[in-house]
Amino acid sequence: MARIVMKFGGTSVANLDRIRHVASLVAAEAEAGNEVAVVVSAMSGETNRLVALVDGLDADRVKQGEALGGDIDDEYDSIVATGEQVTSGLLAIALRRRGLKARSWLGWQIPLRTDMAYSKARIAEIESSAIGPSMAEGNIAVVAGFQGISDDGRISTLGRGGSDTSAVAMAVALKADRCDIYTDVDGIYTTDPRIAKDARRLRRIAFEEMLELASLGAKVLQTRSVELAMNNNLPIRVLTSMAEVGDPNPGTLVCHEDETMEERVVSGVAYSRDEAQITLLRLKDAPGMVAKVCRAMSDANVIVDMIVQGISRSDSSANLTFTVGKRDLEKALAALNDAQAEIGFDGIKSDSDVTKVSVVGIGMRSHTGVAQTMFEALAERNINVKVIATSEIKISVLIDSEYTELAVRALHSAFELHTASAPKVSAP
Amino acid sequence: MARIVMKFGGTSVANLDRIRHVASLVAAEAEAGNEVAVVVSAMSGETNRLVALVDGLDADRVKQGEALGGDIDDEYDSIVATGEQVTSGLLAIALRRRGLKARSWLGWQIPLRTDMAYSKARIAEIESSAIGPSMAEGNIAVVAGFQGISDDGRISTLGRGGSDTSAVAMAVALKADRCDIYTDVDGIYTTDPRIAKDARRLRRIAFEEMLELASLGAKVLQTRSVELAMNNNLPIRVLTSMAEVGDPNPGTLVCHEDETMEERVVSGVAYSRDEAQITLLRLKDAPGMVAKVCRAMSDANVIVDMIVQGISRSDSSANLTFTVGKRDLEKALAALNDAQAEIGFDGIKSDSDVTKVSVVGIGMRSHTGVAQTMFEALAERNINVKVIATSEIKISVLIDSEYTELAVRALHSAFELHTASAPKVSAP
Repeated sequence: MARIVMKFGGTSVANLDRIRHVASLVAAEAEAGNEVAVVVSAMSGETNRLVALVDGLDADRVKQGEALGGDIDDEYDSIVATGEQVTSGLLAIALRRRGLKARSWLGWQIPLRTDMAYSKARIAEIESSAIGPSMAEGNIAVVAGFQGISDDGRISTLGRGGSDTSAVAMAVALKADRCDIYTDVDGIYTTDPRIAKDARRLRRIAFEEMLELASLGAKVLQTRSVELAMNNNLPIRVLTSMAEVGDPNPGTLVCHEDETMEERVVSGVAYSRDEAQITLLRLKDAPGMVAKVCRAMSDANVIVDMIVQGISRSDSSANLTFTVGKRDLEKALAALNDAQAEIGFDGIKSDSDVTKVSVVGIGMRSHTGVAQTMFEALAERNINVKVIATSEIKISVLIDSEYTELAVRALHSAFELHTASAPKVSAP
Repeated sequence: MARIVMKFGGTSVANLDRIRHVASLVAAEAEAGNEVAVVVSAMSGETNRLVALVDGLDADRVKQGEALGGDIDDEYDSIVATGEQVTSGLLAIALRRRGLKARSWLGWQIPLRTDMAYSKARIAEIESSAIGPSMAEGNIAVVAGFQGISDDGRISTLGRGGSDTSAVAMAVALKADRCDIYTDVDGIYTTDPRIAKDARRLRRIAFEEMLELASLGAKVLQTRSVELAMNNNLPIRVLTSMAEVGDPNPGTLVCHEDETMEERVVSGVAYSRDEAQITLLRLKDAPGMVAKVCRAMSDANVIVDMIVQGISRSDSSANLTFTVGKRDLEKALAALNDAQAEIGFDGIKSDSDVTKVSVVGIGMRSHTGVAQTMFEALAERNINVKVIATSEIKISVLIDSEYTELAVRALHSAFELHTASAPKVSAP
């Protein structure tokens, strides 16, 4: 007998048929003798509906350019948390109708304690003193994902995608043997199969690789959930909720790297269209200038990602190029304009029609030649690289968006990711 | 400065425009220096949507005639309570956007404690140790109606219409000076204005009268809320949420009877189409027979309302006629068929095409002649009375449904309810 946590995302519980199907998958695990906790998201579309209600309240004021007074994040959380509350109740009912013992658990009932950063709260502590014994008595615990309770006794939410984090955190707190993340794809792929038809499902992937892929735009797992699993050495299985009970459904195991993995240099190619590029022209080339820019961005709550400084000119000025999230672009430009005098630069150029493409692999730690292969493949297709950023296990480039598919296919092919038997690339 | 509770039903918060309008009504009370708690229902249609989700889960099983295993009322409550959770958050946001201090309170946050009769819970206790000080600090308390927390820490709901009860109970717990129930009509009328065009809004009505009217089918206030207000001598004002701030909006005050009221004999005419009539033929006329019938109904969870026994026949048998709720008719007939041998009767007749029409007035305690006026008015229109029931302050008759409008108009006219200056009927 094992204790397992199963997590189902919005598309997996999109309607009553899907919820009944999820109940059959959960029932199979429970009837096999496992202690089961299930973490559920809101039915797909429901969170958007709730957010639209909140936004709609302000629509008139926004249209008239009025200031929106008052911090509302605590109330926002109380509203959007209802999506998961409904799903957890419905799944508990579906399980009882199958003759199983089940009950729903809301964030405040567990309690799953968070800090008070409403709408993007971080988990502080999960008490298992109530839910643990309930599970030990044979009750399936159906946990509303994405939500917790703050120090002042109000509902908090973990931010978009927080249900993955809920699931991993519950698995850690419950000392679960594993955490199965059910989603609408059947695992982690070497790249987006919609772009490269020969993309291949990975049977295993290391936490570190998954972390790079998750933060680089592969939307299967939320970054924080992978970090949490890695720090607690909890294997995550990513698998499809569309399979029938009993069908083979191996998915992808996300776990600590092992020896077979090391033989693989590159595991995947990721891309993100959510980037925008900003160039500050003729920035005065003095110590602390970049820090000033970063501080201006940080004060405006804008995260700076890739950053590159041009070669210094004779007049001791240089262009500085960096990327920010596309939806932060306007905010960033406004903040930079405000700070132009203090920072000291001549002008700003920006471009939101850019894509970040990355190759990721833990094998890059011990293998050279990845950069060479990557840039040769891009150069062969005449794809111009605007910015480069590297880490120990990834290389990212910023390119014009129109080359996105071409670049992804070129890199997928250059690293022979379509085959498990490629030289230097051994399937785990 | 007063402490007041304002309650807004589903149509009053039906959409974002209505919610912003409610915020303006609440703001006016707060800005006048009052401490304000607001109790809100779900947006109209929302509770039905949530109930449909729960019902939809079982639709296949019901269609196939399968038994529905497992009690689900606790999960049902957790699901439907989200309707009020959303509204309370939205109204709190709308108030903050107006520059006011406001926060939402869910049943478990107050806490409003109930028994464990999920889906029809009764309030056990309301703690005011958190919400009271918050209000005293100038925060408008926006309370999610209809919901509480049970002894085992789960969400409970008070049953349909429970938001009125929440409001009155909150007003009692907060020692409020008054409780204003905002709804989609502008007060309590002498009868249904859709039937009698000359129906008149009452400026005052006694708790006891309101109780009879509420339980007799006038759907403005929930019976339990009126009982609670009466027992705690808390005046309720019923008024429309459609009026603009500053417009005259006197509504109807529901309060203990006073001297002006006593001059009025009849206050209103109510009707209910939710009745069904059952007649047991040739019931053995022995002591305890009626009790046996009532026990059979009670065991089947069917409430018996009006009851009349026919004149005993020479063979010591008599027909027994009584009414039950229309939706309980099938259940009642099944239980009676099962108990036929034990109770002892020859056959059953039933009719669900009946209406109960009632005249209500506390003046009936000290005035005679009401019954005579009533039966003369009905006889003049050739309306056949099938069953009669009376209490100290009301007379109810059961008639064929097709005569409903005719009977209501006849009685409204016979008691001269259209005019405040009728003889023996003085407006308060």
